[in-house]
Amino acid sequence: MSEFRQDPLTKRWIIIAPERGNRPGVHFEENQRTSNFCPFCPGFEDKTPPELFVVRKSGQVNGPGWDVRAVANKFPILQIEGELDRQGEGPYSKMRGVGAHEVIIENPDHIKHIHQLSVEQIGLVLKAVKERMIDLKKDIRFRYLLLFKNDGEAAGASLEHSHFQLNAFPIIPQEVDLELGWCRKHYEVNERCLLCDISDYESQVSSRIILESLYYTSFCPFASRVPYEVMIMPKRTYHGAFYTEMDNLQLIDLAQVLQITLNKLHNAKYILEKIVSLQYNMILHIAPFFDHYPMPNGKTIELDYHWHIHIVPRITKIAGLEWGAGIFVNPIFPELAAQELRGIKV
Amino acid sequence: MSEFRQDPLTKRWIIIAPERGNRPGVHFEENQRTSNFCPFCPGFEDKTPPELFVVRKSGQVNGPGWDVRAVANKFPILQIEGELDRQGEGPYSKMRGVGAHEVIIENPDHIKHIHQLSVEQIGLVLKAVKERMIDLKKDIRFRYLLLFKNDGEAAGASLEHSHFQLNAFPIIPQEVDLELGWCRKHYEVNERCLLCDISDYESQVSSRIILESLYYTSFCPFASRVPYEVMIMPKRTYHGAFYTEMDNLQLIDLAQVLQITLNKLHNAKYILEKIVSLQYNMILHIAPFFDHYPMPNGKTIELDYHWHIHIVPRITKIAGLEWGAGIFVNPIFPELAAQELRGIKV
Repeated sequence: MSEFRQDPLTKRWIIIAPERGNRPGVHFEENQRTSNFCPFCPGFEDKTPPELFVVRKSGQVNGPGWDVRAVANKFPILQIEGELDRQGEGPYSKMRGVGAHEVIIENPDHIKHIHQLSVEQIGLVLKAVKERMIDLKKDIRFRYLLLFKNDGEAAGASLEHSHFQLNAFPIIPQEVDLELGWCRKHYEVNERCLLCDISDYESQVSSRIILESLYYTSFCPFASRVPYEVMIMPKRTYHGAFYTEMDNLQLIDLAQVLQITLNKLHNAKYILEKIVSLQYNMILHIAPFFDHYPMPNGKTIELDYHWHIHIVPRITKIAGLEWGAGIFVNPIFPELAAQELRGIKV
Repeated sequence: MSEFRQDPLTKRWIIIAPERGNRPGVHFEENQRTSNFCPFCPGFEDKTPPELFVVRKSGQVNGPGWDVRAVANKFPILQIEGELDRQGEGPYSKMRGVGAHEVIIENPDHIKHIHQLSVEQIGLVLKAVKERMIDLKKDIRFRYLLLFKNDGEAAGASLEHSHFQLNAFPIIPQEVDLELGWCRKHYEVNERCLLCDISDYESQVSSRIILESLYYTSFCPFASRVPYEVMIMPKRTYHGAFYTEMDNLQLIDLAQVLQITLNKLHNAKYILEKIVSLQYNMILHIAPFFDHYPMPNGKTIELDYHWHIHIVPRITKIAGLEWGAGIFVNPIFPELAAQELRGIKV
């Protein structure tokens, strides 16, 4: 069983997961193509754990005929059963690796990446995410749900067939905790959401905007860590702490914004010059579930945090400065990246 | 000129450095081998900026005959001239990319990595680091000095010839700021240094120890982010906030601990199974220069922070969980990694 361990110097929780060493590695990709076997393809539904959520036009439960399919990860970093069993060990803290680790298979077609799907199909994927989040949120052991995607080998993908991963954690991830802390400080001083302010300011100056829809702003952040980094977030009028609050209109609008943004990235000249094709990580940040455990000022959370998506193209190398200092060196001004992306027709 | 920008959500400073796009990339390595040209090799001293520090047995200033050589980086991410010119821009903060970016060339031999050098030669390298740090610390614009090494292409190295990089920053890097914050909290409660406590505890339980010398402990940290991660730090009796406080005996002892630790890593069976040869980042963390600017509780810093070295082998992929949440998934228990490393004879 895996174990959560906390670094006492940074309070960063990491996961020791010995079982992960045994899963199919990145070389699996080649096997999938040559052997015609992919556990996420129709006809191989028995190679994954049973469906947790499915959209299907035809066929039987756990058989072919589906459009989107959510299942437990066969090689999970965390296990759903049991209690946390928090323990100290000298100056350290640890607990059992309790949590959820699910996979959302975006479409039946092995070779289609998310940006190649229709807006309707992406909408079904986003709907599946929402439904799985609503279900996982019921478990009061969990404080956080993290949705992410690794697209491409350089981005850490181990299976080629396009999918999202959804984790339920009994902890607040460090990066989210940092964001929350500064958002709360901003709220204490200004009684406004920092992310609302950012969204407003970006619309106003427009130099970093990629596109705007009725509900969302897609832009290159002011302090982009890597070339062509993107943030997508609801506008101030649609402020919300949780992704699950979106209605169907907002969901379809987000599907379109995602589709256009990703296709622009896939056609960015600088990216194509540096790497053969875009590889990236996408991460959804929502608020933690403060109603699951006592916290000071817990009640303000709906006002001071605002869900958003980070898209991180994997072009530059992560070296000593990044690892040792958290300082990223980005050779491209985000204003230039955004200007290029705005101009790309998709 | 480059620019510091601060992410308002995390207060992480990043650097936009357009000039870095023009430097020789990783493909330069091949050119070095085929063209027999390396700017760090003897005979090509005129291809680098002039010497800032040198240990030489023979020859003229800026000519061959040196053992260790420190020069300014020809493609710096920061420039030494000018004032910071702090500016706000809507909800954001930025300032000019003022700082230092130096290179310490470890030995004249193009193909020798640091672990292949003699203890005496590594001692000269560590001495060069100390001298450059003492010099750079005189500039009161700088709050932090960061020494790091990228060894191997996967670790972000763009030149093959073994070298360290030394940056002077007008900011405190985020990772160090996090460590400092928790070290201070520990000191406030216990009136002890957290890193001293960690060093003591590791010696006591011994399961994560790689080796101990008179002055130093080399061990796999409890919450290792990656397989075979290593920390090297002075023992409690030799507590110090700054690397520059080391005397010559401590410096030679550190050279030996580094040499043995790195050679053990280079012979670790698991690492060799996963990747052709060890590639890693090495980072030195020291305290910031609080006497360079006013800070609350500035005076306690000598007691509550303790310099140390992180060594991060680059075996696992950095994917969405790491980027988006700061959660690292490590397939190897650090106790098993340390056990293997202890057993390797070098």
